Amino acid sequence: MAILVVGSVAFDTLTTPSGQRKKILGGAATHFSLAASFFTDVRVVGVVGNDFTAEHEAVMTRKGVDTTGIEHAEGLSFHWTGSYEGTLGEAKTLGTDLNVFGSFDPKIPQSYKDSDYLFLANIDPVLQLRVREALPGVKMVAGDTMNYWIADHRENLLKVLREEDILIINDGEARLLTGEHNLVTAAKKVMELGPKSLVIKHGEYGATAFFSERSFNDKAASLTPFRAPALPIETVVDPTGAGDSFAGGFYGYIASQPALTPQVFRTAMFYGGVMGSFAVERFGTERLQEVTREEIDARFRLFQEISHLDLDRTV
Amino acid sequence: MAILVVGSVAFDTLTTPSGQRKKILGGAATHFSLAASFFTDVRVVGVVGNDFTAEHEAVMTRKGVDTTGIEHAEGLSFHWTGSYEGTLGEAKTLGTDLNVFGSFDPKIPQSYKDSDYLFLANIDPVLQLRVREALPGVKMVAGDTMNYWIADHRENLLKVLREEDILIINDGEARLLTGEHNLVTAAKKVMELGPKSLVIKHGEYGATAFFSERSFNDKAASLTPFRAPALPIETVVDPTGAGDSFAGGFYGYIASQPALTPQVFRTAMFYGGVMGSFAVERFGTERLQEVTREEIDARFRLFQEISHLDLDRTV
Repeated sequence: MAILVVGSVAFDTLTTPSGQRKKILGGAATHFSLAASFFTDVRVVGVVGNDFTAEHEAVMTRKGVDTTGIEHAEGLSFHWTGSYEGTLGEAKTLGTDLNVFGSFDPKIPQSYKDSDYLFLANIDPVLQLRVREALPGVKMVAGDTMNYWIADHRENLLKVLREEDILIINDGEARLLTGEHNLVTAAKKVMELGPKSLVIKHGEYGATAFFSERSFNDKAASLTPFRAPALPIETVVDPTGAGDSFAGGFYGYIASQPALTPQVFRTAMFYGGVMGSFAVERFGTERLQEVTREEIDARFRLFQEISHLDLDRTV
Repeated sequence: MAILVVGSVAFDTLTTPSGQRKKILGGAATHFSLAASFFTDVRVVGVVGNDFTAEHEAVMTRKGVDTTGIEHAEGLSFHWTGSYEGTLGEAKTLGTDLNVFGSFDPKIPQSYKDSDYLFLANIDPVLQLRVREALPGVKMVAGDTMNYWIADHRENLLKVLREEDILIINDGEARLLTGEHNLVTAAKKVMELGPKSLVIKHGEYGATAFFSERSFNDKAASLTPFRAPALPIETVVDPTGAGDSFAGGFYGYIASQPALTPQVFRTAMFYGGVMGSFAVERFGTERLQEVTREEIDARFRLFQEISHLDLDRTV
């Protein structure tokens, strides 16, 4: 079933140990859409400027992504400039030119109204909430956020969290949101804020899913946490968008399934890791543009191989 | 088959967020031995002082650990004083009283000479090498080390690494040893120094095994890295000895099997995680003293549950 994603469609100027790129296509909604497009229909709500050309839009439409909801405004698109040091752990932001994104007011096309799955990418929680309220009939809401909103827009963020079925954040965000260093304690506190389930991403160490009594309709379902590995990668060309690609693979798989069972959630964690592992192999969206479903399935099997004890019985 | 472990048998004075303990039984060889004792015969080589009583020794002998090789010297046993801050990530050393351990000269009892598996716990690489050379007939050598030896005793350490089949270290040690931040690159460089296989521990995120063409006798064996999860734990009472307990579970399982296959190595990674997860639940060796084989097997199944996609087919 279709996912509606609202978030940034942007340009990135990047420096990594592998090189530099100027104003290449990026943005959370872009990475998410491309990653999710391999699993289900995706519809984007965002805003771009005059520098966003038909060729940029075609990057999405070629993958079947519906770009009807990308508003074209006068001015320039959101432009982020960042660099990664040798460790590639965290980006150093050198410039954030919001441009047309600074006055973004999400408009949902009529043709998107029947979307069953909503993904609120990392934008102002006020906008996240507005989109969520404009789509009262969605079957599931998942979302992302970042330190800036957690620290400085907490009240607004808390309103959004109450609406979310699944929150996808990283270790640092979970700790900042709850004031708890221990991830199990932090996870419990996050779910008390609203999300029925929580995915905490650990970067190169994979991700952990935490569940609550509200996670699944099947009350007998196991609520044991689930740990998905990340692929050990020697050359990370560009980490930008890895988290959004994880979210796209994860949520795209969930939306492609008839119901959210523990097994579907677990499998989705693996597909999230798979899409994230492809995203970092090249700059920007380059790898997600060319990856094939066959490569995705082969890597899914590789993720099983690196984490499952008994290959013959699990692959 | 029997493991000979050489390392510290010591007392720890600890402060953690859960409380304080004064001069409780500790030491790398102690934690290793207790953890490994559930899987195979273990023989300890170490040195203790007059403060090491029959009751301390009985903690080991009750588990069938052979303590013939623990030398009783005049003076006090090695005594480490440390504290853990709220994050429990790294211990702050407040005192290191080497005492009789400062002039430790490992003596191997005749009855240990037929040991097939050797574990060189974290001690001076000069002593590690001496023990290794005194046991030319062992079938397999595994070892640990720490930042101090890597930074200040590198040449001696390099001699030991050339003798090791499996090196078990953590992220920081792998990076310090190789100067490489990327763990895949670091792993390759470590194995060029000698170890046929490498286990890198990631603390709360589990551990990764890296293999080389020399890891297995079966040349067709998969050399794909393997990632084992750690159990998400809400209350870590005392992290001291977690790494040694991991090594004990890991190597103990390997020594209990007829040959080192990829499947045995992978299963050993899980048993390592299992024993480490028990060790941190109480202070010092308390939990390893009382844990049962039934609990160990139940937790092994839990480790599968938190990491395997298809439970019905893997448990």
